Amino acid sequence: MGEDKYERIVDLAVRRGFFWPSYEIYGGVSGLYDLGPLGTLLKRNIVEEWRRVFVQRHQEYVVEIETPMIAPSRVFEASGHVESFTDPIVECTKCGRKYRADHLIEAASGVKTEGMKPEDLSRVIVEKSIRCPQCGGPLGEVRLFNLLFKTTIGPYADAVGYIRPEAAQGMFTAFRRVFEASREKLPLGIAQIGRVARNEISPRQGMVRLREFTIMEIEFFYDPKNPSCPLLDRVRNRRLRILTARDRLSEVDRPSEYSVEELVREKIVSGEWHAYWMAVASEFIERLGVDPSDTYFEEKLPHERAHYASQVFDQLVRVSRWGWIEVSGHANRTDYDLSRHSLYSGSDLTVYRRYPSPVSVKRRRVRIDKQAVLRIYGEKAPEIFRALSSINLDTLDLSGDEVEIKGLRISKDVFRVEEVEELVHGEKFFPHVIEPSFGAERLLYVVLDRAYSEEGERVVLKIPPRLAPITAGIYPLIEEEDLVRIARKIYRDLVEAGFYVIYDESGSIGRRYARADEIGIPYGITVDKQTLEDNTVTIRFRDTREQIRVRIEDLVDWLRKSLSPS
Amino acid sequence: MGEDKYERIVDLAVRRGFFWPSYEIYGGVSGLYDLGPLGTLLKRNIVEEWRRVFVQRHQEYVVEIETPMIAPSRVFEASGHVESFTDPIVECTKCGRKYRADHLIEAASGVKTEGMKPEDLSRVIVEKSIRCPQCGGPLGEVRLFNLLFKTTIGPYADAVGYIRPEAAQGMFTAFRRVFEASREKLPLGIAQIGRVARNEISPRQGMVRLREFTIMEIEFFYDPKNPSCPLLDRVRNRRLRILTARDRLSEVDRPSEYSVEELVREKIVSGEWHAYWMAVASEFIERLGVDPSDTYFEEKLPHERAHYASQVFDQLVRVSRWGWIEVSGHANRTDYDLSRHSLYSGSDLTVYRRYPSPVSVKRRRVRIDKQAVLRIYGEKAPEIFRALSSINLDTLDLSGDEVEIKGLRISKDVFRVEEVEELVHGEKFFPHVIEPSFGAERLLYVVLDRAYSEEGERVVLKIPPRLAPITAGIYPLIEEEDLVRIARKIYRDLVEAGFYVIYDESGSIGRRYARADEIGIPYGITVDKQTLEDNTVTIRFRDTREQIRVRIEDLVDWLRKSLSPS
Repeated sequence: MGEDKYERIVDLAVRRGFFWPSYEIYGGVSGLYDLGPLGTLLKRNIVEEWRRVFVQRHQEYVVEIETPMIAPSRVFEASGHVESFTDPIVECTKCGRKYRADHLIEAASGVKTEGMKPEDLSRVIVEKSIRCPQCGGPLGEVRLFNLLFKTTIGPYADAVGYIRPEAAQGMFTAFRRVFEASREKLPLGIAQIGRVARNEISPRQGMVRLREFTIMEIEFFYDPKNPSCPLLDRVRNRRLRILTARDRLSEVDRPSEYSVEELVREKIVSGEWHAYWMAVASEFIERLGVDPSDTYFEEKLPHERAHYASQVFDQLVRVSRWGWIEVSGHANRTDYDLSRHSLYSGSDLTVYRRYPSPVSVKRRRVRIDKQAVLRIYGEKAPEIFRALSSINLDTLDLSGDEVEIKGLRISKDVFRVEEVEELVHGEKFFPHVIEPSFGAERLLYVVLDRAYSEEGERVVLKIPPRLAPITAGIYPLIEEEDLVRIARKIYRDLVEAGFYVIYDESGSIGRRYARADEIGIPYGITVDKQTLEDNTVTIRFRDTREQIRVRIEDLVDWLRKSLSPS
Repeated sequence: MGEDKYERIVDLAVRRGFFWPSYEIYGGVSGLYDLGPLGTLLKRNIVEEWRRVFVQRHQEYVVEIETPMIAPSRVFEASGHVESFTDPIVECTKCGRKYRADHLIEAASGVKTEGMKPEDLSRVIVEKSIRCPQCGGPLGEVRLFNLLFKTTIGPYADAVGYIRPEAAQGMFTAFRRVFEASREKLPLGIAQIGRVARNEISPRQGMVRLREFTIMEIEFFYDPKNPSCPLLDRVRNRRLRILTARDRLSEVDRPSEYSVEELVREKIVSGEWHAYWMAVASEFIERLGVDPSDTYFEEKLPHERAHYASQVFDQLVRVSRWGWIEVSGHANRTDYDLSRHSLYSGSDLTVYRRYPSPVSVKRRRVRIDKQAVLRIYGEKAPEIFRALSSINLDTLDLSGDEVEIKGLRISKDVFRVEEVEELVHGEKFFPHVIEPSFGAERLLYVVLDRAYSEEGERVVLKIPPRLAPITAGIYPLIEEEDLVRIARKIYRDLVEAGFYVIYDESGSIGRRYARADEIGIPYGITVDKQTLEDNTVTIRFRDTREQIRVRIEDLVDWLRKSLSPS
């Protein structure tokens, strides 16, 4: 197979209905893909597996919500995306074509551009005499291009809105509501699965870099003073392959293996929850059919991290053509988002931490001499009382004989400042956030890439049975009335039981198996002469071609069991 | 309850986590709502029920695909939305506020505005002296406002794109690919479930009129010369309540009941498939807990129909506060969309209809006298041959001695037109389309509205068990170690089995049941003293408060059975 495996997968995908470029009849739009009938089923099974692993099994801690794709500009000003969600762009001054500047430079000159600012990139273009690859014209200055899709909400032109580039902000802006509806307990994970859009400058990697895709994301909120993960024991001994930032800076390019235990103890990962969700991610990726040796986590260097993150690990998987691609990101977002939204919205997004027992704190307060106020200020006394009760001791200038409050000058004879001890029961704080984030369509491509195999002339998609778009094919061995009738009845029964199955009676049984193998149907159910005698059918296994016999009445249970999560 | 049932539902929804306005901390954006943890589960169950009823059970005919929300402008120029997807808007010339003109007029004057053009609406505003309801200022001219959210795809400002207002266009533009991947058979239903956005001028009906929502839609393609529905027998006797356009024009305002059989026979509905999907829709709505007497289909009048439809029925459901609301539309879109996309894209979106047997057709064709061409035109002969072979006999002027083809004048002596009989094996045609289309969030509101009931002080959400966000609550009767241990084990086992459940040990059992009733948990599983003796637990039914005892080891099966589709 070798080099053109990617082409073969894409050819199969288009021909059998996994995916194809959107709006082909209008010439297509790069970065937009349709999922066909099989792709939609496969993607849904991947999404459901993610939901099962990350949400449903963690329902004690994690809830799922759904927020809109469109948000008012204020949300993305607060999140920092309006300022920072950019890529460098350069335009040909002759033909007007536009390019992603860093990609263009790397392709044209081999210069590594990571971490370069626009002015650096402009300099390289001049130094290396890089010109427009289409027309040969001179390139202009590199500038930053914002990747948010911009629109207008409602009929007022100044009501700018954006399509979200991540689902996260909907979870941050709804944090207080979700927290209240969840009995106000931490830790609290808020998950969301939904569409996002990123206005890439010129995406060219098929299903791997899309302008619109489905994100699966958790914002996991925890108390930074109580950061322990009660679930850590479940994964303590799981081994992850990690390439740390320190290794990368020392030019090490091969990941090392650590247990989750070690990651936490040696502080390689920022905390227990961060490590826990990475362990869950590694389990999840294996369930998709990825061998542990074909995946690792790479720590991002400071200049590679998104603006909101203090530590990020990308989970990489090896695929044909594109090599190592990112399938998930694991960011420690600290309290960046909640504190920014508090600041921008004026809403209090803190959480109250009750102390185990009340703490005694020294505090200064004002003691007013009421008699003195009445004596000195007479009719003005009520005004003076009000002013004194609103004193802010932190900013008050106590150096003279009088103090000034709300424009009133008040004698220091009418009050004194005393220090008192008070019992404090708790304090406010912003929860910190760990974010595991996956792209569903990219995983779909990964599953196809891992599953694709050729056996002689035949293509077999060895998709894990739970994820396969179609669970079973039902075949009468020969086109004979009795067998056809029974096979059709099995088809109807399996449909009624909720499965996706196909019925196929055309061509030789070998041809039918081959057609089914090509789209990854794990089980072939064949009705033959023996069926008429003992009510059994054969089940043929896609990957081994082994066959067993099962009673028709047991088929539903047999299939359910074979698809159940391990 | 009466008038403020809506308020109570909204209050419950916000407090317990079904839904709330999005971006509340920034003051909210009208028409955008978040689904909280319970709302997300409920919506998913509704979506899955729709998928089960419309797609999975019909998988022989219907496939599901997924296409992007963002499309290039050409798609919506072809579909007619750029021109026709508009609402009338009017602006106050004093304060600049903008209003949906027809709504403003109806609210201010009671004048019925259906079918009025902008100039008609402007006239009514003048006649009735309607002014700005906010500042009293004079209103300007009514104009049309396009409801498509507009954006730009990629870095070129002229690459205009829109967010889809319906999922349909993605199915039409991908029709050929899906058709080919589905063995090129008609009828073929293409389903899609996904987000759409409509930039409403000033939405004010909470969850009922959203600027962004999830659509569930089928474009069902069939051959107009072979329009019969082989599934009709399944629903032939189902009775639907219908208010026809004819009735409405005769001022009848109460629907009449018809069997599906009658709808077809009396041509009340445009065809068998149209009637069939309406029957499926009526079954679906009943599964959501809507009584047949609270729903009917209303045929739209010509001026109420979308620009692409020849006949439309809206399915209405009665809810508190808003009265009859539309939950689905059932349009006959004819071949409008496919033919428009063929025209705009230059791609052939027709399908080939093979005749049962070849048909003999008379056709005129050109017979060229080669010798004469060579003799008369000499060196120019090749040019003449090319011109003659591209003759279009339908437009050719044969009245003179010469004909003109591609700027060449050619003597009629070199060819003659003869009539021949040919065997034709088939013909090309555009499939016609029936479209059932539902909004998921609106159905979520419908389910809550139908389920909400009060029994004394207590609120019970009588959501059908299959749709309930949480399937069971697990309770130790008293906080006693043995009972707690067993209850927690049951909780873990049910989570592992894939259910959404809660564990609750705080407060009296009555309080716990009440909290569960309020969010519609259909089953309460209580561990009590008897559990220690015989390994059974009680299951309490939310709606009847009856209790039965079930063995712990049978719980998973019992719950699965009770949730299985009837």
